[in-house]
Amino acid sequence: MLILVTNDDGIEAKGVHQLIDALLPFGEVVCVCPDSPRSAQSMAITVNGPLSATELPSYHGARMYKVNGTPVDCVKLSMHALLPCRPSLVVSGINHGSNASINVMYSGTMGAAMEGCVFGIPSIGFSLTDHSPDADFDHCIPFVKKIVAWTLQHGLPEGICLNVNIPVTLSRPHRCRVVRACKGNWSDEYKEYVNPHGQKFYWLTGNFINEEPESTDTDEYCLAHGMVSVVPTKIDQTVKSDVVPGIMELE
Amino acid sequence: MLILVTNDDGIEAKGVHQLIDALLPFGEVVCVCPDSPRSAQSMAITVNGPLSATELPSYHGARMYKVNGTPVDCVKLSMHALLPCRPSLVVSGINHGSNASINVMYSGTMGAAMEGCVFGIPSIGFSLTDHSPDADFDHCIPFVKKIVAWTLQHGLPEGICLNVNIPVTLSRPHRCRVVRACKGNWSDEYKEYVNPHGQKFYWLTGNFINEEPESTDTDEYCLAHGMVSVVPTKIDQTVKSDVVPGIMELE
Repeated sequence: MLILVTNDDGIEAKGVHQLIDALLPFGEVVCVCPDSPRSAQSMAITVNGPLSATELPSYHGARMYKVNGTPVDCVKLSMHALLPCRPSLVVSGINHGSNASINVMYSGTMGAAMEGCVFGIPSIGFSLTDHSPDADFDHCIPFVKKIVAWTLQHGLPEGICLNVNIPVTLSRPHRCRVVRACKGNWSDEYKEYVNPHGQKFYWLTGNFINEEPESTDTDEYCLAHGMVSVVPTKIDQTVKSDVVPGIMELE
Repeated sequence: MLILVTNDDGIEAKGVHQLIDALLPFGEVVCVCPDSPRSAQSMAITVNGPLSATELPSYHGARMYKVNGTPVDCVKLSMHALLPCRPSLVVSGINHGSNASINVMYSGTMGAAMEGCVFGIPSIGFSLTDHSPDADFDHCIPFVKKIVAWTLQHGLPEGICLNVNIPVTLSRPHRCRVVRACKGNWSDEYKEYVNPHGQKFYWLTGNFINEEPESTDTDEYCLAHGMVSVVPTKIDQTVKSDVVPGIMELE
């Protein structure tokens, strides 16, 4: 039983070490992470440059590698060159910050989980709604263990991975719900600056806007009410052709 | 009528200039592209660094900007800071290379189109199955014009954009079909090298494997038979919660 662990916060992040500790009881763990934080890298891959992997001292028995690439690069390179055999599970995280709602599209954590899914391996991304480097992950661990145990036992449908988000404070009794990604968006403001040469530059900021705060079947609702959200997420984004019927008639 | 044009091959690519020429008859065009090639950037965004936009000489009347970021950065920054008003359409491409099948997940071209879709704007990515910098786009132009005209007239459903791929050689009569993304994957090999210090490094290569070459309703089938493929692509990847029923019972 081999488990591949990765993340997008980089090999030094607290969240990935906590994740490894949670997974070691299940089997052999190999951890392959970006050598520095690669947040919001989505499924970006390195196609026009070289990659290298450096083995680091093991952590509590887990083999550790850092890669000078994205989270998806880490999964691809692991599968090709680093792992001793095909893993039974790919687990990404625990991310420092939410990947609920629309964030899943930009998330490197979920990019890695989706790549595991591309390889046909049951894959899960875990995220905590706290960006701080020293976030407290203790309450995440029982959920990580339960969801991993369930997934190892039952598998996941082809082409579907899990996006698990965990709130900072849990309601009592502790609960986990399978829900859908909330409709929402970022206000996407940019803070404007002027450099010493008089030229403008920009830095992304903005606020998340929940477009359906009253809906009770969304990940954002769960998180706002102290529950862990599990969103089954599929990699094929095709919708039925009849949504654009007229285009069929173009010659 | 304002159209935002972007791509992932960078501001100097032939494909985006051909696209601008095709779109100018429809209205005002503003082109905002990465300052260098950003292939396979998916929906990556720049969150931990500054962005700048540099206006370049106009091209056939279109305002031109280069941005030191990803394709999605280009769309976000355009919406916030560069465009004079909300565009009626976001068009990305014409990409030098296919974005059919699984490639859509890694594609910066389609990342930009999906970001336009996030903003609620009808959005289309166009790609030609030829990677060469001097690819011949002439036969693409009638399809670009027809699909853009159709989309401007009818709009697109909320949360859905179009992934259009065009083969190098068209069948006769010229045809366009609305299909689904083909199941397929990359063999994801890495060519291994040894650096002057004796350390290994890797460069991504591999071959595309069509997992369903007999299916006639896929984008890969269209392209292999000289037809233009249109795949309606949705940004919400949630699947129904009953695919993982057992997780509901975890406390």
